[in-house]
Amino acid sequence: MAPCEKCIPKESTPPSRVAEGLIRLYSMRFCPYAQRARLILIAKGIKHETININLKNKPDWFFEKNPFGTVPVIECPNGKVIYESPIICEYLDEAFPEKKLMPSDPYEKAKQKMLLEHYSKTVPYFYSIAAALRNKEDASKQEEEFKQKLTYLDGILEKQKTQFFGGDSVSMIDYMIWPWFERIQGFQLQHCLQHTSNLNSWVSRMKEDPAVKATMNCPDTFKTFYNLYAQGSLEACDYGL
Amino acid sequence: MAPCEKCIPKESTPPSRVAEGLIRLYSMRFCPYAQRARLILIAKGIKHETININLKNKPDWFFEKNPFGTVPVIECPNGKVIYESPIICEYLDEAFPEKKLMPSDPYEKAKQKMLLEHYSKTVPYFYSIAAALRNKEDASKQEEEFKQKLTYLDGILEKQKTQFFGGDSVSMIDYMIWPWFERIQGFQLQHCLQHTSNLNSWVSRMKEDPAVKATMNCPDTFKTFYNLYAQGSLEACDYGL
Repeated sequence: MAPCEKCIPKESTPPSRVAEGLIRLYSMRFCPYAQRARLILIAKGIKHETININLKNKPDWFFEKNPFGTVPVIECPNGKVIYESPIICEYLDEAFPEKKLMPSDPYEKAKQKMLLEHYSKTVPYFYSIAAALRNKEDASKQEEEFKQKLTYLDGILEKQKTQFFGGDSVSMIDYMIWPWFERIQGFQLQHCLQHTSNLNSWVSRMKEDPAVKATMNCPDTFKTFYNLYAQGSLEACDYGL
Repeated sequence: MAPCEKCIPKESTPPSRVAEGLIRLYSMRFCPYAQRARLILIAKGIKHETININLKNKPDWFFEKNPFGTVPVIECPNGKVIYESPIICEYLDEAFPEKKLMPSDPYEKAKQKMLLEHYSKTVPYFYSIAAALRNKEDASKQEEEFKQKLTYLDGILEKQKTQFFGGDSVSMIDYMIWPWFERIQGFQLQHCLQHTSNLNSWVSRMKEDPAVKATMNCPDTFKTFYNLYAQGSLEACDYGL
């Protein structure tokens, strides 16, 4: 597992070339999108190093790696750079084909991507409801919509009668969805999972996965991090170090 | 090429199973996202039939095909259904591997997807500027941002010194980007292409591509369609038939 290091300072010079045989991950310890890439790197046993980026205080050179300025980003020894978590994860799965996480069947692959598309429309609710609760605003309408989306996910597992979203073993789509469920207590949204027994069983199963275990943080850490981050604290990304 | 037929009525029953050896495309004649799928089907010579959906008056059963209610959607003889244009196009490229449009190299593939991600942030400008112009509002700020995004695309072609976005022949990414450039006059945005000579040469080259030619509409058609559509006309999608 990559060491948990403090963010690289804003005034740093660009890191040197990546050593042969390594992948460099630009990450942030609490970022769920970056966690997707970390899960895939660990699940596939890909040797990597990690540079954490302070998302509240980014080095200028980071925008040359990724014009969007977001994490995750990966960099290869040949200088090639890839950003956007689903693109990174599919790249890693294809470039390191030993332990495939995406199905090879074109339709099964398309199904995972369609589910990811649905899930991408669920993700904003985690943040908007958590923000409303933090500001003591009424979040009931958003919670209702959020619960409908969770019911949709629950229904997929029920209909498929599978342990995981892509079948009976963990695959790419599970790792794409997971990071926000690890944070559900941090977001104070666990009450939205009262009527989704299939989804809850999936959460329990995911917690047993070695890559999930290796990237796990505790709910209180997330709670404190999100409070600091929402306040704009420059130290949020280094919380706990 | 699929026949240009009127939209299936809202009160229709769901179409019967797709015949063996065919792909069914749910489309709308003027939809740029659906055109992506049409381009791929034609470029790869995949036998298909088309059912046009009136996007202002959709049959209820269509939401069972695609919960998002958008076109394109494809349906296979085995009843399998796929929606979202990039997912459809990649599926078609993998399921019908005779004439591959996506590069097989993982990094080249990732590059096409990153460019598509950039382009996806350009697409909304076509609509928002056209709407502002239609409502006689000031669109200068949006136009400025739009031109920056076009300059980014232009710069890629300049840097790569290639005829197309994926190399010296048409590939997946060109077809993903193309439909909005066919409509640029329809959107009355051709003045935004004054300083993008590489992009303009790409547009000229694309107009020579057989699949592009086979799906081409004239600028006036788009202009009238968009006016009707913006007015909420139920006849917009059947304009010209």
